[in-house]
Amino acid sequence: MEFSSKIIEQAVEAFAQLPGVGKKTALRFVLHVIKQDKADSEQLSDIIRRLKTDLRFCSNCHNIAETEICGICSNPSRDGSTICVVQDYRDVMAIENTGLYRGQYHVLGGLISPIEGISPSALNIESLVNKLQSGKIQEIILALNATMEGETTSFYIFRKIAPFHVKLSAIARGLAVGDELEYADEVTLGRSILNRIPFDTLLRK
Amino acid sequence: MEFSSKIIEQAVEAFAQLPGVGKKTALRFVLHVIKQDKADSEQLSDIIRRLKTDLRFCSNCHNIAETEICGICSNPSRDGSTICVVQDYRDVMAIENTGLYRGQYHVLGGLISPIEGISPSALNIESLVNKLQSGKIQEIILALNATMEGETTSFYIFRKIAPFHVKLSAIARGLAVGDELEYADEVTLGRSILNRIPFDTLLRK
Repeated sequence: MEFSSKIIEQAVEAFAQLPGVGKKTALRFVLHVIKQDKADSEQLSDIIRRLKTDLRFCSNCHNIAETEICGICSNPSRDGSTICVVQDYRDVMAIENTGLYRGQYHVLGGLISPIEGISPSALNIESLVNKLQSGKIQEIILALNATMEGETTSFYIFRKIAPFHVKLSAIARGLAVGDELEYADEVTLGRSILNRIPFDTLLRK
Repeated sequence: MEFSSKIIEQAVEAFAQLPGVGKKTALRFVLHVIKQDKADSEQLSDIIRRLKTDLRFCSNCHNIAETEICGICSNPSRDGSTICVVQDYRDVMAIENTGLYRGQYHVLGGLISPIEGISPSALNIESLVNKLQSGKIQEIILALNATMEGETTSFYIFRKIAPFHVKLSAIARGLAVGDELEYADEVTLGRSILNRIPFDTLLRK
């Protein structure tokens, strides 16, 4: 693409760095900003800057936070002996929205992926192991994607924390609520049979 | 969606104003910016601001420009007696990239669309009529989308400029180069037969 203006070209390149945004979409964004009210575009510009200046990663769980320690880690009513290991901020949001978890989190910041060049050392795994050395942790729940990267990461963490003899669990794989058995893939269905749960447990939910 | 941070919430709302971006995509953008190098996010923030401060609309053709008069309008080698009417900046880019047009442009800034509430008065149509009053214009080429909005706008402009007795044409509708006749829709095919062109014209291209 050839642009008549250097500014438009730079803006397209900057927007095209966003995930899933190609040059055509970036140009749509640029034209939108040009047409937009000045106040709106200034707000977008300011908030992008503030995302870097006003946010940090919680020094305990690595979740995105406005303070040194995030709201969940500093909340005394949360159970500090249970840690739910997740990939990123979105997963914390998703689990928090269920309203069913009262423990703390540990955000890895990604999943092990040889294809994308993400090795274990790029993730917050060492600090998880360090937490276990305090002896205060009783249970670790692995809540990672049911993908190859998620399973690989779960297995890597399992190997790392096995020496500590804490209770280790993973979120259940099975039929989604509302799914029809007939359309479930065989791997999911197979695992949902192997990992069947006592019926009275279901009744309590 | 509930966010743990007011800054993230505001950023998601700002990004979600971009065309085709919902809250989930906006959150992906926000998380990307948070992870990004500070230099990259500052560049994005700065360039968004510059899009409003350093760019303007050419006072002659209404295209996006860095100066009062855009590079095309101020280029003496361009034919000022021919004006190609287009919807927006992208269409100027597309036609410029063909390298086959040496006239000037007139950018409407949109198309008439009762559904989206865009009336003719919201577009740069009056300034086109004013240009014709100078008597220097010999040909107007309508290069608008082959959609209902595009055809409506073309017809509206046709009515507006009919009194001036300038040559008025519209870009050809027909089979795209490389298309197979068998798969062309019947309206396009019908119009390509009605608007058939002398074969020697094709040979000259």
